[in-house]
Amino acid sequence: MTAIDLNADLGEGFGRWRLTDDERLLSVVSSANVACGFHAGDAATMRRVCELAAARGVTIGAQVSYRDLAGFGRRAMDVPPAELAAEVAYQIGALEVFARAAGARVAYVKPHGALYNRVVHDEEQAAAVVDGVLLAGGALPVLGLPGSRVLDLAAKAGLPAVTEAFADRAYTDRGTLVPRGSEGAVVTDPEAVVERSVSLARSGVVAAHSGARIEVRARSLCLHGDTPGAVELARRVRERLTAAGVRVEAFA
Amino acid sequence: MTAIDLNADLGEGFGRWRLTDDERLLSVVSSANVACGFHAGDAATMRRVCELAAARGVTIGAQVSYRDLAGFGRRAMDVPPAELAAEVAYQIGALEVFARAAGARVAYVKPHGALYNRVVHDEEQAAAVVDGVLLAGGALPVLGLPGSRVLDLAAKAGLPAVTEAFADRAYTDRGTLVPRGSEGAVVTDPEAVVERSVSLARSGVVAAHSGARIEVRARSLCLHGDTPGAVELARRVRERLTAAGVRVEAFA
Amino acid sequence: MTAIDLNADLGEGFGRWRLTDDERLLSVVSSANVACGFHAGDAATMRRVCELAAARGVTIGAQVSYRDLAGFGRRAMDVPPAELAAEVAYQIGALEVFARAAGARVAYVKPHGALYNRVVHDEEQAAAVVDGVLLAGGALPVLGLPGSRVLDLAAKAGLPAVTEAFADRAYTDRGTLVPRGSEGAVVTDPEAVVERSVSLARSGVVAAHSGARIEVRARSLCLHGDTPGAVELARRVRERLTAAGVRVEAFA
Amino acid sequence: MTAIDLNADLGEGFGRWRLTDDERLLSVVSSANVACGFHAGDAATMRRVCELAAARGVTIGAQVSYRDLAGFGRRAMDVPPAELAAEVAYQIGALEVFARAAGARVAYVKPHGALYNRVVHDEEQAAAVVDGVLLAGGALPVLGLPGSRVLDLAAKAGLPAVTEAFADRAYTDRGTLVPRGSEGAVVTDPEAVVERSVSLARSGVVAAHSGARIEVRARSLCLHGDTPGAVELARRVRERLTAAGVRVEAFA
Repeated sequence: MTAIDLNADLGEGFGRWRLTDDERLLSVVSSANVACGFHAGDAATMRRVCELAAARGVTIGAQVSYRDLAGFGRRAMDVPPAELAAEVAYQIGALEVFARAAGARVAYVKPHGALYNRVVHDEEQAAAVVDGVLLAGGALPVLGLPGSRVLDLAAKAGLPAVTEAFADRAYTDRGTLVPRGSEGAVVTDPEAVVERSVSLARSGVVAAHSGARIEVRARSLCLHGDTPGAVELARRVRERLTAAGVRVEAFA
Repeated sequence: MTAIDLNADLGEGFGRWRLTDDERLLSVVSSANVACGFHAGDAATMRRVCELAAARGVTIGAQVSYRDLAGFGRRAMDVPPAELAAEVAYQIGALEVFARAAGARVAYVKPHGALYNRVVHDEEQAAAVVDGVLLAGGALPVLGLPGSRVLDLAAKAGLPAVTEAFADRAYTDRGTLVPRGSEGAVVTDPEAVVERSVSLARSGVVAAHSGARIEVRARSLCLHGDTPGAVELARRVRERLTAAGVRVEAFA
Repeated sequence: MTAIDLNADLGEGFGRWRLTDDERLLSVVSSANVACGFHAGDAATMRRVCELAAARGVTIGAQVSYRDLAGFGRRAMDVPPAELAAEVAYQIGALEVFARAAGARVAYVKPHGALYNRVVHDEEQAAAVVDGVLLAGGALPVLGLPGSRVLDLAAKAGLPAVTEAFADRAYTDRGTLVPRGSEGAVVTDPEAVVERSVSLARSGVVAAHSGARIEVRARSLCLHGDTPGAVELARRVRERLTAAGVRVEAFA
Repeated sequence: MTAIDLNADLGEGFGRWRLTDDERLLSVVSSANVACGFHAGDAATMRRVCELAAARGVTIGAQVSYRDLAGFGRRAMDVPPAELAAEVAYQIGALEVFARAAGARVAYVKPHGALYNRVVHDEEQAAAVVDGVLLAGGALPVLGLPGSRVLDLAAKAGLPAVTEAFADRAYTDRGTLVPRGSEGAVVTDPEAVVERSVSLARSGVVAAHSGARIEVRARSLCLHGDTPGAVELARRVRERLTAAGVRVEAFA
């Protein structure tokens, strides 16, 4: 029986502001990418999300980011590697406290936003992220894009490198994501997203933007939780995966 | 043979800015109160200070603060208890990563600045600090003023409550500190500071502002490191303690 | 014919986060308290709100706050007066650029959140706020609670002191607000809020929590815009005021 | 008689931290690039520096930066143009309040750190900076590197474009700066810096790294104030300029 993980970003509010519907998302996903305070996520929110996740048996991951609350971590920054590594470790450590207090642990690391995109190609920053994960200890798995530098370097450093796919994003024939902003970059039809999810999970094959069938091997599917209807869509994805005989199961 | 701990605030720079002479202070103190990013202390600095402290066998403590870089944590803030507890735990967790990576651990917690002063009397915030320490796990000792609420509540919660004294601050007859700003609140004569240190360590007795001999039982002496000549004075204090047969030794 | 101003907090998002429905609120209120970046409000949002306000003829005010994004400015802080005055001026100046670029100007100042509450009684901080307004120049009116220290000191300094009332808050017999958290502190019935608005505007009289009729003279009514149904309620208030022969008109 | 401006970065502390010796630098320079709170510079410091500058007749400029206190504005950031423009205007407006209160005005704008370097080549961000200056009003001059995109676009937008040179930096044969980190990038011999200053001011000619004589036309010389001996060196530069018949005079 095939298994797939469903991950989503959680705890992405800050102080007075809320973004993600943490409680409902946690009833759908198997892995929670918890914001650690650098792009979003205050300490009280981190604590609450960890408690909810632990109570539901959802695996907790550290969603690490550039230090950029004003830009929600979506602006690439030329952070020197030593600083970046330390900042990654700092975030993991801060989250670890709340995971542990909830009877769980931080089980993986996923870079967020601009950092996620940058470490696909940027050797120096990818290495810094891996250094940060090593610094934090525990040989945590790194979750990222297949073929990304960060996964390559993680694997070389002895860290589990876990691939993810996006059912709601268009792929090029080479298996990379069609950049946001390009026409058709985002798959908006809910039924299409559901079908692509099942296809990605069962066969690792999905229709590229060109229509060609391409292979996208991923151990996890990333679901989005910050748009209207997102939780409902996530729930449908999960139900259809189960109905198709795919076991939804965290990778860590 | 009597033992006393010498503690000082370290790593109190932020990014481009430096304040404390970490390297030299670490050759004098037995306990380092490391800033955790809320009033000072970026991740790279925290890492470096932990490495230096571990290499010198200096005990690492988390110097936790209100979230207030602009005010250096010196402005009292009405932080709701649940938030404050979570913020305290967050800071401990972040520091723990760097202590652990350096082969050490966070061995105690000391509130900083306005939070330090507030938890002397403020029941709610004192309880929140203790909750934060408990949340972080490991039953860490709390370092504070004799008779403060935070030490009382720490002890009730099963945490070691460790008292400290200030050789360069004047005391009232009741053993409390003469408020900064009052005349004679700070002892500026280096020789007087040295003598008071020895007296506090050996007999737990010191001359109050009035001249009366009072008892101030403390397991640790707090040294200041952010003024010119501070490191030199700290070194003299340590030498004279040793000469007087007092063992300088961390409490944790 | 009686005139009343309707003011509401606007632009209280930050980066990725939104809170207030700025566009719709601006079709109801006559005065916009624009967040200036210290408790909420990034530069791009400030610009947009000023453009929208200017286009609709809504008066722009600077909603100044403690520097506290994490706490949304709701946590009292012991900011030294000289710093607080400078921070108030800084915020006014930053907003002035966007008001001016939109063909308008900053026409008044309203403290936000914990600062608003503190300058009701705190002489030192009230004086600091007035100093900040004077520093910014232009003799801007200050909007606040009747009887508050800040209005008193503003008036003494030659600044117009403008009073406001809250139709959705219960009053004590002495005309002060029943503290949030007390039973019945917030009036939740929309029709009651509408009626109290009309009564406050027409006669300056409202039923206190005890049932007694008390006088609350105010030139402005504060409407809330961050709850579901808030904009709709604000619109009803405005319509009923107009129907009752009250002119909705900015004070500045 | 030739005239040259001497500019330096000022007010680059934050809260408890100090960096620049503002008072002494202000007795040497003719133009003060005042930090506006995004990479350094709190409100109270901005106020104080403006007062000191105005009292000494030193021209006040807004040193605008990426929002990056942790990185001191030295890390390039992919800030979307509309946000960057608004942030530039925000900083100018905030400083304007303190300049005005001191009886002066913000007379020019100089990008700081990574933003300074980026707008040499980056069309989009250079245009955003110019948009921000236009938004702030008053047709403020922009100070930058000869040949930089930002000066080009400023000139096209009708803003005075003012060039500056660095007496303590090595130049390539094409008149660009030898990148920091390269061998010989910084001229460390004080006498050499003094001579290069006089040469730059009198003839616009300086020895490139290769030894070739190249032309570097600049209306302003940038002096550094954050290193030991910096103020003393700046003073020597000024004295020798005067002795060489060059008038030290602000450009704005």
